[in-house]
Amino acid sequence: MSTLYDYPASANCLKARLLFGLLGRDYDRVAVDIFDGDTLTDDYAALNPLRETPVLVTDDGEVVTQSNAILWLLAEGTPYLPSGALDRARVVQWLLFEQERVMPGIGNPRFRLLTGRAAADPAGVAARQETGREALAILDDALPAGAYLVGATPTIADLAVYGYAHAAEEAQIPLAPYASVRSWIGRLEALPGFVNDLAPYPPNAAPGAGRSIYDARP
Amino acid sequence: MSTLYDYPASANCLKARLLFGLLGRDYDRVAVDIFDGDTLTDDYAALNPLRETPVLVTDDGEVVTQSNAILWLLAEGTPYLPSGALDRARVVQWLLFEQERVMPGIGNPRFRLLTGRAAADPAGVAARQETGREALAILDDALPAGAYLVGATPTIADLAVYGYAHAAEEAQIPLAPYASVRSWIGRLEALPGFVNDLAPYPPNAAPGAGRSIYDARP
Repeated sequence: MSTLYDYPASANCLKARLLFGLLGRDYDRVAVDIFDGDTLTDDYAALNPLRETPVLVTDDGEVVTQSNAILWLLAEGTPYLPSGALDRARVVQWLLFEQERVMPGIGNPRFRLLTGRAAADPAGVAARQETGREALAILDDALPAGAYLVGATPTIADLAVYGYAHAAEEAQIPLAPYASVRSWIGRLEALPGFVNDLAPYPPNAAPGAGRSIYDARP
Repeated sequence: MSTLYDYPASANCLKARLLFGLLGRDYDRVAVDIFDGDTLTDDYAALNPLRETPVLVTDDGEVVTQSNAILWLLAEGTPYLPSGALDRARVVQWLLFEQERVMPGIGNPRFRLLTGRAAADPAGVAARQETGREALAILDDALPAGAYLVGATPTIADLAVYGYAHAAEEAQIPLAPYASVRSWIGRLEALPGFVNDLAPYPPNAAPGAGRSIYDARP
């Protein structure tokens, strides 16, 4: 059985939990308290030198990092990863778009706002939110009516982008202007096996309350 | 024949030119002057709403954006993209690492330093350079002696990371401390068909000298 090193309030981690749910696969879950120093140990650096969650360890003991690469591995051989070369390149394209625009533009301001880090750099938060709004506008234009980012059925491109896009309002970015995005979120949330157990940030996520990589670099 | 919309001083574009060269494939090259407003047109937004280079248009008229997704499509069916599921997930992992750490940590400060944008935000450049040094240290540890990021032969993971990593000194990040990285750069540059035609930034790349997306957001 695979093991997921996982933080409950991270939408990067939610992506993997969501795909496990949609595939109906069991996995072991190791809770990583990123604000209690769990990623600061030498053991964790050996698992992931970037000290990020999630990390997947396969039943063969192989380690894969980067949430979207974990999605790729889990989805191989399932309908969530198309087989054609062009479709696969388009999936890769959206995985990169997600990490270039959605994570920085929604995930980052969500983190700063929910954990009390926004007040220290309001201009930085506003610039990130603008990136997030641009990303949502691009998604809204790209989503075909009733369909998904790469074709007529959902792929890991959708799951990756859903991770932070669905949480835009926690980043104080209203979803109201993006009708196609809202409709697509609804279609994803209606899939059999869908799970969204994204947790609130706990008290030790506040600045200075715990020990984490964010104490040094927000 | 494929068409590459391309900017000569962009290492994101160099990646695609490099893979075309290694594969011995011809392509049409459309020069995009990103500092003369070429990416600000409605036509360009229709090609790539992110207004970035490179963009690939296949001989079937299909459009693929994101430099690393272009690498993926071009490499399908060649030795530059391995066939096993785990190896492919590892390639995806490095493509994401590149856009998360190498591009922001080396490509961004290189751009700011070479085009006269660094003086406006020296602290921002220094923070990015620290990200770049961390990325190089992670690469240095990850690279096996005589081999490549994913196995014994080069893949698009190597080409993607090479794009900006080899230009670290233009970002004022010395490569001297990273012996494995330097050795790996040498192995890549010795491959048959290797090309590195990364151009200097022209005068219109200076702040205020042209019209580009960077005038609004550096």
